[in-house]
Amino acid sequence: MSTDPETTPGPEAGIDPNTLRDSEDRISPLWLERLRAYLAAGRADDIATVMEPLHAADAGDVLESLDPDERLALVRILGDKFDYSALTEVDESVRVDLMDELSNADIARGVTGLDNDDAVTILEDLEQADREDVLSQLPTFERLSLKRSLDFPEESAGRRMQTDFIAIPPFWSVGQTIDYLRSEPDLPDEFYQIYVVDASYQVLGIIPLDKFLRSRRETRIEDIMNTNVILVDANEDQEEAARDFERYDLVEVGVVDEKRLVGVLTIDDIVDVIHEEADEDIKLLAGVGDEDISDAISDTVRSRVPWLVVNLFTAVMVSLVIGLFNATIEQMVALAVLMPIVASMGGNAGTQTMTVTVRALAMREIDGRRLRRLITREMVVGLINGVIFAILIGVVTALRYGQVDLGAVIGLAMVINLVVAGTAGILIPLALDKLKADPAIASAVFVTTITDVVGFFAFLGIAGLWFGLF
Amino acid sequence: MSTDPETTPGPEAGIDPNTLRDSEDRISPLWLERLRAYLAAGRADDIATVMEPLHAADAGDVLESLDPDERLALVRILGDKFDYSALTEVDESVRVDLMDELSNADIARGVTGLDNDDAVTILEDLEQADREDVLSQLPTFERLSLKRSLDFPEESAGRRMQTDFIAIPPFWSVGQTIDYLRSEPDLPDEFYQIYVVDASYQVLGIIPLDKFLRSRRETRIEDIMNTNVILVDANEDQEEAARDFERYDLVEVGVVDEKRLVGVLTIDDIVDVIHEEADEDIKLLAGVGDEDISDAISDTVRSRVPWLVVNLFTAVMVSLVIGLFNATIEQMVALAVLMPIVASMGGNAGTQTMTVTVRALAMREIDGRRLRRLITREMVVGLINGVIFAILIGVVTALRYGQVDLGAVIGLAMVINLVVAGTAGILIPLALDKLKADPAIASAVFVTTITDVVGFFAFLGIAGLWFGLF
Repeated sequence: MSTDPETTPGPEAGIDPNTLRDSEDRISPLWLERLRAYLAAGRADDIATVMEPLHAADAGDVLESLDPDERLALVRILGDKFDYSALTEVDESVRVDLMDELSNADIARGVTGLDNDDAVTILEDLEQADREDVLSQLPTFERLSLKRSLDFPEESAGRRMQTDFIAIPPFWSVGQTIDYLRSEPDLPDEFYQIYVVDASYQVLGIIPLDKFLRSRRETRIEDIMNTNVILVDANEDQEEAARDFERYDLVEVGVVDEKRLVGVLTIDDIVDVIHEEADEDIKLLAGVGDEDISDAISDTVRSRVPWLVVNLFTAVMVSLVIGLFNATIEQMVALAVLMPIVASMGGNAGTQTMTVTVRALAMREIDGRRLRRLITREMVVGLINGVIFAILIGVVTALRYGQVDLGAVIGLAMVINLVVAGTAGILIPLALDKLKADPAIASAVFVTTITDVVGFFAFLGIAGLWFGLF
Repeated sequence: MSTDPETTPGPEAGIDPNTLRDSEDRISPLWLERLRAYLAAGRADDIATVMEPLHAADAGDVLESLDPDERLALVRILGDKFDYSALTEVDESVRVDLMDELSNADIARGVTGLDNDDAVTILEDLEQADREDVLSQLPTFERLSLKRSLDFPEESAGRRMQTDFIAIPPFWSVGQTIDYLRSEPDLPDEFYQIYVVDASYQVLGIIPLDKFLRSRRETRIEDIMNTNVILVDANEDQEEAARDFERYDLVEVGVVDEKRLVGVLTIDDIVDVIHEEADEDIKLLAGVGDEDISDAISDTVRSRVPWLVVNLFTAVMVSLVIGLFNATIEQMVALAVLMPIVASMGGNAGTQTMTVTVRALAMREIDGRRLRRLITREMVVGLINGVIFAILIGVVTALRYGQVDLGAVIGLAMVINLVVAGTAGILIPLALDKLKADPAIASAVFVTTITDVVGFFAFLGIAGLWFGLF
């Protein structure tokens, strides 16, 4: 990013906002040190001077870089000068911790005048009683509009929407609309399209601003409006709304509740949703739940233990399978030395297939016809990789132990396990998806348990038969 | 998504575009079957009638749902009526396969008149010679502007940018600008802001359309322009540009080359970048390279083998470590049965920490001061989880084998391995990041190798010492 040097406002007193970030694009340690010095000295005015010119996103990053007690001190010392929209830019855990420390009166003052969607983000994490209390201290209009947004389900379009928008009747002219826009002081901060509605706020059409700008003053709105309108329902999941934005390259979309226009979703909210969803997939696959880097130790332990418990359970199961071959291993200890190789290769191959499948499911890329092609593909890839790695490990083993037989046994087990890995890697996420479970959350444990069990069982079983050890 | 029934154009002859998608939001099998019937019967006009009303994104999804030979047949039968922008909406492998089959003359006709960024997406995958050939068949202006975009590095802002934009001098008035917009036929399809430039196309400021619309005709441009402008360099990586969009909630940003405005990036391109980057991280972590669901078997094998080779290598190394304890295992075969439990728990715990760290690095959330806090946190979490799971597995083992000693040994090994897992899970991605390597690509193999080695070594080593088996 480069900011044109000639047009950027000069450095503010104290800490230059242009030095906010270091070359790695992180908040600069120097900048932070000086802010900390101001905080320690209680220099409220200086702090206000350096924080006020910051974009909410930058202020949020500054907050995240501070220690929890410094964050609170910063918010308190700024008082009414603290811009609460910065709180929408920090991790949920940071926001919740701060909210816990602030009084409901402070929060009410802070969210008054914020964009509706920002206020919702801040209020939705509060306890029910605190939320009611904060809402009761807000001006009537804001209270009602926030209450309506908060009534929609979590992670719905209604929760994310902005309730300010421009709606005009179809019989207006372009000139009339421009005059209205110029004279009306109470317009949304940013908008990209104008909604054309009937008396009951049903959407008749939209006009993107660029098209609007190019039309002559006398043109009637209904003659230029785009009537093929994509709308989302307020109760729809934000993820589905995000898919519409991505697919149709939207910048703004109207949100309807029982056919009436109640708000708009803009792309900046959707970008956050897209990010969260991709993040969620990665984290679910690794079994770390909804974890943020700034979570406390206790939250981190709580987020990770469930997955580890499941893994302990399956690991013990796998160990029971190995236990079946106690006598075999006793007679030939090389088997114990080699067996993790087969299991580990299966686990990796299965994870590869599973990851591709989980992502394709998340992006709705798999349909009926493709499905058969994909399952066949994965089995064939498993077979090819199985043969490649069977030969590699077979030769290595034969050389290491001077036993061609042992090489053949491990090679055979490898082929079996990699075919099973490919098959399980695609079928398990598909089955979970069919059962309406999130394939990202449970696939990994199923797939690796299967490849472990099959890996150990095939290798030890074939070895037992081949060498007559049973 | 709901489309207002009253304002949506009626069903087209043959296949109703409203039935394009099924309830799962995938291309409906019924719709596809009828398209296939048209294709088989060579009904070119009917195919044109059903394909033309589709949004490029929908047409792309239809293409992806067809078999490779059907895709080619569809493009050929539509001829000049095929909208090449649909090709920017399909997986790279699908696009490349189609391009291979089409003549350069066809491709040249297809990209003529496309948006610059769409044409670049189609041309950038062509072989050098074919690309030159296609370019030579284009109108001069398009050829030059495409050549310039293609000269920027792959995945740079210059490659992704749109070269049509609105640039005006600062001394114009709002009215003059509106008149220009109304009279000029050759404007970009969509734009969200107006650029104010000097004679050498250096950016002096920008005006978002909504602000522009609300200003009176006589207002001078330089009085309302926003001078604190974020610009990206054409050579900058698209990922960095994406971070600016996300952070500052941008919808459009100017792209400069040697300070001159040469194009604009819009949020729809950036949404694709954000998606790709998150996808890349997931896939790199799983070791599947840059793989698409529609890749051929040979590409899939090629994408997965390298990672499996690395894994085979480390698995053999791990097996050598186990081999050191041959004699120990021979005396107590229960060790072979139990040892995968310790390794598997370590691998999972290490992967959890690593995933959180890799994502935090990708999103630039880790700075110096946080770092120390994070490393400590991960070690403490490892210790706490280690103690929890040491007790669990210790009790289970003691009961299973009737040996309290064996329970103590596996418990001790578990504590050691989970602390090591947490430490390796954070230090390895950080080290790779410091070495300018992508932590997503190589962390997983390092982390699991370490937890395997430490898991087996600690468990077998402690057992050997405890039971005097050396």
